[in-house]
Amino acid sequence: MKHFISPSDVPNIQDLVDEGLAQKANPLADRALGKDKTLVLLFFNSSLRTRLSTQKAGLNLGMNVIVMNVGSDSWQLEFGDGVKMDGNKAEHIKEAAAVIGQYADIIGVRAFAGLTDAEEDYKELVLESFRSLSGVPIVNLESATRHPCQSLADLITIEELKTKTRPKVVLTWAPHIKALPQAVGNSFAEWLNLTEYDFVITNPEGYDLPEAYRGNARVAHNQAEAFEGADFIYAKNWSSYTDYGKVLPGNEDWIISEDKMALTDNAKFMHCLPVRRGLIVEDAVIDSSNSVVIQQAGNRVWSVQAAMKKILGEL
Amino acid sequence: MKHFISPSDVPNIQDLVDEGLAQKANPLADRALGKDKTLVLLFFNSSLRTRLSTQKAGLNLGMNVIVMNVGSDSWQLEFGDGVKMDGNKAEHIKEAAAVIGQYADIIGVRAFAGLTDAEEDYKELVLESFRSLSGVPIVNLESATRHPCQSLADLITIEELKTKTRPKVVLTWAPHIKALPQAVGNSFAEWLNLTEYDFVITNPEGYDLPEAYRGNARVAHNQAEAFEGADFIYAKNWSSYTDYGKVLPGNEDWIISEDKMALTDNAKFMHCLPVRRGLIVEDAVIDSSNSVVIQQAGNRVWSVQAAMKKILGEL
Amino acid sequence: MKHFISPSDVPNIQDLVDEGLAQKANPLADRALGKDKTLVLLFFNSSLRTRLSTQKAGLNLGMNVIVMNVGSDSWQLEFGDGVKMDGNKAEHIKEAAAVIGQYADIIGVRAFAGLTDAEEDYKELVLESFRSLSGVPIVNLESATRHPCQSLADLITIEELKTKTRPKVVLTWAPHIKALPQAVGNSFAEWLNLTEYDFVITNPEGYDLPEAYRGNARVAHNQAEAFEGADFIYAKNWSSYTDYGKVLPGNEDWIISEDKMALTDNAKFMHCLPVRRGLIVEDAVIDSSNSVVIQQAGNRVWSVQAAMKKILGEL
Repeated sequence: MKHFISPSDVPNIQDLVDEGLAQKANPLADRALGKDKTLVLLFFNSSLRTRLSTQKAGLNLGMNVIVMNVGSDSWQLEFGDGVKMDGNKAEHIKEAAAVIGQYADIIGVRAFAGLTDAEEDYKELVLESFRSLSGVPIVNLESATRHPCQSLADLITIEELKTKTRPKVVLTWAPHIKALPQAVGNSFAEWLNLTEYDFVITNPEGYDLPEAYRGNARVAHNQAEAFEGADFIYAKNWSSYTDYGKVLPGNEDWIISEDKMALTDNAKFMHCLPVRRGLIVEDAVIDSSNSVVIQQAGNRVWSVQAAMKKILGEL
Repeated sequence: MKHFISPSDVPNIQDLVDEGLAQKANPLADRALGKDKTLVLLFFNSSLRTRLSTQKAGLNLGMNVIVMNVGSDSWQLEFGDGVKMDGNKAEHIKEAAAVIGQYADIIGVRAFAGLTDAEEDYKELVLESFRSLSGVPIVNLESATRHPCQSLADLITIEELKTKTRPKVVLTWAPHIKALPQAVGNSFAEWLNLTEYDFVITNPEGYDLPEAYRGNARVAHNQAEAFEGADFIYAKNWSSYTDYGKVLPGNEDWIISEDKMALTDNAKFMHCLPVRRGLIVEDAVIDSSNSVVIQQAGNRVWSVQAAMKKILGEL
Repeated sequence: MKHFISPSDVPNIQDLVDEGLAQKANPLADRALGKDKTLVLLFFNSSLRTRLSTQKAGLNLGMNVIVMNVGSDSWQLEFGDGVKMDGNKAEHIKEAAAVIGQYADIIGVRAFAGLTDAEEDYKELVLESFRSLSGVPIVNLESATRHPCQSLADLITIEELKTKTRPKVVLTWAPHIKALPQAVGNSFAEWLNLTEYDFVITNPEGYDLPEAYRGNARVAHNQAEAFEGADFIYAKNWSSYTDYGKVLPGNEDWIISEDKMALTDNAKFMHCLPVRRGLIVEDAVIDSSNSVVIQQAGNRVWSVQAAMKKILGEL
């Protein structure tokens, strides 16, 4: 595997899930693989799970890990072509990416969507710039439209917990007060479409994920109906794609409640975290024994560790 | 030892002081103990000595060390129970603590007092939340009401420098322009009360430390009297506990001066640092050969290293 | 070598350049030298190349590396003598430097010029305070008036690329919208003056570097003339030294263009980065095959690694 930016970088999804489970069973088995290799993690945005789990995975693989908050530690970056740089951006991505590539064997990058211009965000300018300009493998630590480290951890978690060969997995939109990117929803849909699971997306009208990401997944605008017989409820908020970056009025009743969970087949509750209690989910649901959000977060180590192992193996 | 949050976590204070001295004599002796263990250090507030000395101690013990500034690197945390999270706090401590516990073998936490609500601060919500929710041992890197890594370093320093079996140790309030927490004063009192030293606290009226922390220590409101015959002068400012979080008018003359040091039995001058020169202490005192503040800061490595060694030994 | 603050700390420049090339050829050869040693990197200002390359060099040498952003991670520092510290500065450099010296075997410090008071900046208060007060070797990660890690990397790069025994090297001022320090220009001049190269500085009237740094180097105020027959064009902006810290009106035509590069002897284009495209240099120049800015940035690892190897060798 050359990069880990989108599912199209992954030759075989199931093999990568299995690798994640293998890493979890034996976290230090591949320590020699990363010896004397340098992992540079670049954060354009805040991070807790990704920051900690990726450092830990890098160390487990024997790598030296260097973390940098791009905005505050270094310089604002310009991404435009042919721009006269007379604003507040001190460095162009053309230099920055190539320079960091001089110091790193793998670069991890987190860069959220701006949510003002769909076309701009969906170009994935930051991640794709690092891919094309740095000369080294790139790991997507959540980009404008995708969060593959999360989606792989989600698949690992479902694999660990499923009690049926073909569980019903429901991705449900849930309310939030802020406009959030579509990245986690997009990515979960993309990855689930590559499995054999029974996959349903449910969201209010106006919140359909872009077709290129939801693919042929069933989309239900009736949440209760979608929950029926579900084995896994995966909750996440995202802002509107069609009315780009907007929080549409209403829909507070899409909160994940005990009542709704009662419609499922004793489903596990999943969320990528951080989660707003009382908005996205009722305390009773996330505090119940069916909530697997902590196990899911724990699996973030094995997900990125599996991806980086595959990358290191081809360096 | 399971945690290092307050003296009640410590089975035997003298044994821990001895361990600190042993670590100082042989800093790398226990390197194997922390091998492949992860120490996560969480800073809700600024730090210099604690940040550097704890990283160094962790590395000396062979651990992988990951540092995170909670506010700027990750998300604002909500601590309230049953709150609808529709403000600016993106994550609840219930998830954050449990998640970090997935990645860490030991978590160090710095979280200062807010100084607006005594009851709230003295609940030690942040540290106690991590204790109860993370599932792993917690090291207190200065909490709302205590700073045990500092107090243990202070005891190590006194042990190194004392020339009498039962030296007279004076904790003296000193002036400051800002409202500071009681944590260092509280903690020093708590720990000194567990020794055989002759211990006196001196502070202006209105600045008595809370009884639960100063215990049976003598409190003198006459600074000069308290200094007489002292072997160690430990200076520190704190805001009022009774008029909570306030800087009371006056008391600038409580500065530690050469004149006052002349009242002592050639006492060593101690302060936890950072220290405001010209407010807390005269240059002539802190620059004198009796000032041991740098040695004291150096001992911060051995203090937290001793505590973490005890914790690692029981993992 | 005791410190690496200015060229006067370096016994033999050519030997250090050779050491840089040797480190590049064999990056892990001296790993044992830094084992169990602690490198503390202190940033008073933003950094990308220096931050990453120095961490990497430290790790290559086997050291433990600890990074701290002074302003945001710890406390604002007071540098004045005899000051009553009743402002917003919580700690004096006298304590801070000595304390950090307790935890570090080598300290790297970045502290830019304030650009309001030439005399103040040229005293190099921050770096010289760490030199005199910390008790351990100091590496200059760009100070008010110098950037020796950069200059050494520049010499390494020229050494790698030169096709004549005595190439013509031109340091040229180039336009910028912000007032920048003279550090890189000063330092490059200082170091080049210690080589046998044919060295010319070209800058507009009013931008002459201070005599103590430019030494006997030829200064040409006609850029085109200076470029003739050049083998290396080293571009950099700096604010006026004589009209201290000011950006003088005009001079936008000092941008490095293809036309000007055509005057040279097929010169390599160098810049320390970050660089403002369209202000300092035309895209066509920095994107040409004669641009060596990325190789130059890559050499930052070997430059600081060579300097630290020399320091470690004498610890």
